[in-house]
Amino acid sequence: MKVRKVEIHVITDGKQTVEDVTARILMIHKQADFIHIREKSKPVSEILKIVAILIDGGVPRRKLVINDRLDVALLNQIPNVHLPGHSFPIERVREFEPALRIGRSVHSLEEAMECERAGADYVLFGHVFATESKAALLPRGVKQLADICQHIQIPVIAIGGIVPDTIPKLKGIKVSGVAVMSYVIGSEHPARAIQNIKASFA
Amino acid sequence: MKVRKVEIHVITDGKQTVEDVTARILMIHKQADFIHIREKSKPVSEILKIVAILIDGGVPRRKLVINDRLDVALLNQIPNVHLPGHSFPIERVREFEPALRIGRSVHSLEEAMECERAGADYVLFGHVFATESKAALLPRGVKQLADICQHIQIPVIAIGGIVPDTIPKLKGIKVSGVAVMSYVIGSEHPARAIQNIKASFA
Repeated sequence: MKVRKVEIHVITDGKQTVEDVTARILMIHKQADFIHIREKSKPVSEILKIVAILIDGGVPRRKLVINDRLDVALLNQIPNVHLPGHSFPIERVREFEPALRIGRSVHSLEEAMECERAGADYVLFGHVFATESKAALLPRGVKQLADICQHIQIPVIAIGGIVPDTIPKLKGIKVSGVAVMSYVIGSEHPARAIQNIKASFA
Repeated sequence: MKVRKVEIHVITDGKQTVEDVTARILMIHKQADFIHIREKSKPVSEILKIVAILIDGGVPRRKLVINDRLDVALLNQIPNVHLPGHSFPIERVREFEPALRIGRSVHSLEEAMECERAGADYVLFGHVFATESKAALLPRGVKQLADICQHIQIPVIAIGGIVPDTIPKLKGIKVSGVAVMSYVIGSEHPARAIQNIKASFA
């Protein structure tokens, strides 16, 4: 693999309490480029608590990415939102707040190209490798990931089964970053887990 | 009961498809003062569809109230939001968008007074009467409703078990309106149901 900067995105898995998830993020935020707050079943009041604890704890707003809840991003001056497929259309968010960095989850080359045309700042493609959180679905594999990286100009972030053992399989693919969820945030040793991820790119 | 205008709020119950809930609202919107879109388990893409169908169908934006999803209200120029207790604090929404009409759900006099101080435009108090949707909880009753109406200046809307049989029990209470959910929106004959509600105030 070319020695170059690969963005590390850490995504919360929605399985932890406000206290646990913030404690883990505070352990690793300096090692991560972006922290996605993806808490589908927590009410806004709890998501606001997470954001407040992280900002108080020294996590810069520019590293935070709010999943789906555009309103939480707007009210907290967080410059990044990530839109799952069932969320707002990219164009409408762009029109409302042109300066936001807008990412989208995609599952195919067609979808990635559509998102690029719609003005996404990056796409998150997956799941690339087998992962417990998507056990019922076949992984989409590195070939499709490589295809997408060749056909679009905006950054492509790989997600799904990204662990030290699978990272060597990304060699030669022009991926801009990787996203990890349970491997880091579900770990008893999140700091060690993210160090392992970064070491695998060396 | 004094013959005066009582606001009728219709609230969606989250149990219907986009097609069903919009069809029912379009049957009754002219009889209602406010239609609350309260769809806790639908993704944003479906809530946006509901809003688009209603606006296309002639429902004025000023009648629509978006529950919890401030972002959906903002992106659709809908001037009303309703905040459940687990949503954003009133003050933060007010600061972000001073012109919004902001309502809050409350369950006690203390909470109602706090919301008035925080700048709410109205409170929704309940549940006043027994209702299937809150079968496990005792209704809070008309006495507490009357207390709240006497102690705060902003409008109080009664919710919970509001049906033609219970409406006479509101006699003499300075309630500004009533909110109905399943009785209207879950009815096979929503237009008849809302007419029955309105007739009970005559």
